[in-house]
Amino acid sequence: MYAVKYELQKVCAQSGARAGVIHTPHGDIETPVFMPVGTLATVKTMTPEELKEVGSQIILSNTYHLFLRPGEDLIKEAGGLHKFMNWDKPILTDSGGFQVFSLSSNRKITEEGVEFRSHLNGEKLSLNPEKAMQIQNDLGSDIMMAFDECAPYPSDRDYIINSMNRTHRWLKRCKEAHKNPDRQALFGIIQGGMYKDLREESAKQITSVDLPGYAVGGLSVGEPKPLMYEILEHTTQFMPEDKPRYLMGVGSPDDLVEGVIRGIDMFDCVLPTRIARNGTAMTSEGKVVVRNATYARDFSPLDHECDCYTCKNYTRAYIRHLVKCNEILGARLISYHNIYFLHKLMKDIRQAIFDDRLLDFKEEFYKKWNPSFNTGSHIEK
Amino acid sequence: MYAVKYELQKVCAQSGARAGVIHTPHGDIETPVFMPVGTLATVKTMTPEELKEVGSQIILSNTYHLFLRPGEDLIKEAGGLHKFMNWDKPILTDSGGFQVFSLSSNRKITEEGVEFRSHLNGEKLSLNPEKAMQIQNDLGSDIMMAFDECAPYPSDRDYIINSMNRTHRWLKRCKEAHKNPDRQALFGIIQGGMYKDLREESAKQITSVDLPGYAVGGLSVGEPKPLMYEILEHTTQFMPEDKPRYLMGVGSPDDLVEGVIRGIDMFDCVLPTRIARNGTAMTSEGKVVVRNATYARDFSPLDHECDCYTCKNYTRAYIRHLVKCNEILGARLISYHNIYFLHKLMKDIRQAIFDDRLLDFKEEFYKKWNPSFNTGSHIEK
Repeated sequence: MYAVKYELQKVCAQSGARAGVIHTPHGDIETPVFMPVGTLATVKTMTPEELKEVGSQIILSNTYHLFLRPGEDLIKEAGGLHKFMNWDKPILTDSGGFQVFSLSSNRKITEEGVEFRSHLNGEKLSLNPEKAMQIQNDLGSDIMMAFDECAPYPSDRDYIINSMNRTHRWLKRCKEAHKNPDRQALFGIIQGGMYKDLREESAKQITSVDLPGYAVGGLSVGEPKPLMYEILEHTTQFMPEDKPRYLMGVGSPDDLVEGVIRGIDMFDCVLPTRIARNGTAMTSEGKVVVRNATYARDFSPLDHECDCYTCKNYTRAYIRHLVKCNEILGARLISYHNIYFLHKLMKDIRQAIFDDRLLDFKEEFYKKWNPSFNTGSHIEK
Repeated sequence: MYAVKYELQKVCAQSGARAGVIHTPHGDIETPVFMPVGTLATVKTMTPEELKEVGSQIILSNTYHLFLRPGEDLIKEAGGLHKFMNWDKPILTDSGGFQVFSLSSNRKITEEGVEFRSHLNGEKLSLNPEKAMQIQNDLGSDIMMAFDECAPYPSDRDYIINSMNRTHRWLKRCKEAHKNPDRQALFGIIQGGMYKDLREESAKQITSVDLPGYAVGGLSVGEPKPLMYEILEHTTQFMPEDKPRYLMGVGSPDDLVEGVIRGIDMFDCVLPTRIARNGTAMTSEGKVVVRNATYARDFSPLDHECDCYTCKNYTRAYIRHLVKCNEILGARLISYHNIYFLHKLMKDIRQAIFDDRLLDFKEEFYKKWNPSFNTGSHIEK
């Protein structure tokens, strides 16, 4: 019996998008769902109570970062990640693979795993499937990700084939090494770069390993959005319908709409919190760079259509003042709004699925949307 | 009719300390009271709701800083400082004098006022009694402070006499220039350095100007604590009993206890929020530098006797992790606790006054207290 079970509730007749529920040891998650990123056991600037207020059902935390600081042994001693950070809803942890490949230096990849140097102090460290499982078992997350290589873009076909096949072999070692399948769910990650036939092969290989969920990795790594959507659409068709599908490190509001239409249930991204700290809000009209001088005397809310705490109580002029003065409350208020905004978007998408009108919803969305966000990643630096 | 009225409720038979209520246009304040500092229209890291949760009755904001950013004209346009920052309880603003003398450069003091250069961009600016009143009138604070010179320590007698007499003349200009005495209360500030006879003279001069409250300035500027207590005690005896007495820029928990015993009703200091951002908590046992390695695996709360949100939900180990990683939530959680701690201390002091046992309370306090805090100032840098 797996720790996590997906229940399909509805397929949108217009788009084919899915609405469902993921049952986990720390409660149910209504999908499609956006997961805020709490890299270092904190979603930057937010308390757990605020996350619940804005509608977070599950958060993501980064294995690589927690391995470095404070160390998984300390978190285990604290009673696990949920208790350590005072969050009693579900947590998903990544495997550390993405960070090893994007943050660390002096990497050496072998069949065994990866040797690298810490991005903090240059310390020589290594991760491999067994270690990634041990750390995540110690953290006690509800959903654990397999250790994989997220290949860079662009990569040539030979590199991708080699990397993908190793990821497939690593998945088997992960499943083998995972100690608590009844309490923590292991998800496999499909790779294959921008090559459709390799994506198909990877999807078939990965989903042939019986697991409670599967992810699409290696997208949103710098490729153009149309290519990402094309590869995603090609990949999800080979994924089972009775398991949750997670698109890693995505994204921006438009990518969420496009991803759900292509059959994705779960997303994560640092975008809402990262841009908040730079003074940028996601709104129903698109991006609002509230730091800009044009908002200095704008006494209206960040988003005129929003009813979150920030929008009910503060003006653009005040938030801009805070951002300009590097006041923490500025980052807090925008982070709060941005996460609320993405959760609200997901709720609206879910409703449109139940109403068999997600393509109409998409059209309405783009009419108002200013498509100026780059897709982010799933790690807070 | 003045905007602010003091009601004396009780004099402690043991210590002579006062308990009372200050009635203001934005509600009543029970005294003795500690006022958190919201330099730039925000008490660093905190929302107004959180301030209310921890027990803040009134906050202080800095005229000099708001004059520079975002400018008092913008705040006036926003409907005043209360509305701008979403705080509906009382606000006290200082006059900018202290900052001009401590932060800016190229100062030129004349009878007219002070010319100086902004600490932000070197811009040439000036403040004088009339300008300080105009700014504070525009901000709309409940309590405004007179424009004075806070002389440095040590200063020779001639410097202090000259500076103090100018401050006395400036007070008359402030009263003259103040536009809304029925809606905003102007407090005068007693100076006189560390010279008892000059303190007496200043107290008599300042309180001869009929105003709804008076402050003691020019203390906690670097002098030893015993000297501060001595000068303070000497000064308060010349202050009227029917008006609130405010000791500016103080302080640390021990200074609050000592100040109340010497007849003070109001205090402000950046200490709780500033040390929080450096990873230091005020606790019932004294200072806890939670950033230190000794707390890495301490799974107990910041303060074992505290029942605030932070202490009920988080461990020293987790908070230390946040502080070490420069996570905003770390500064938030400690700021929340530290302000709660000072408000709780003031409540306990107030109760001890009603119970005629403040000297006993002081003795109990020092038994547990580790007197390692330096007195802070009333400006967040």
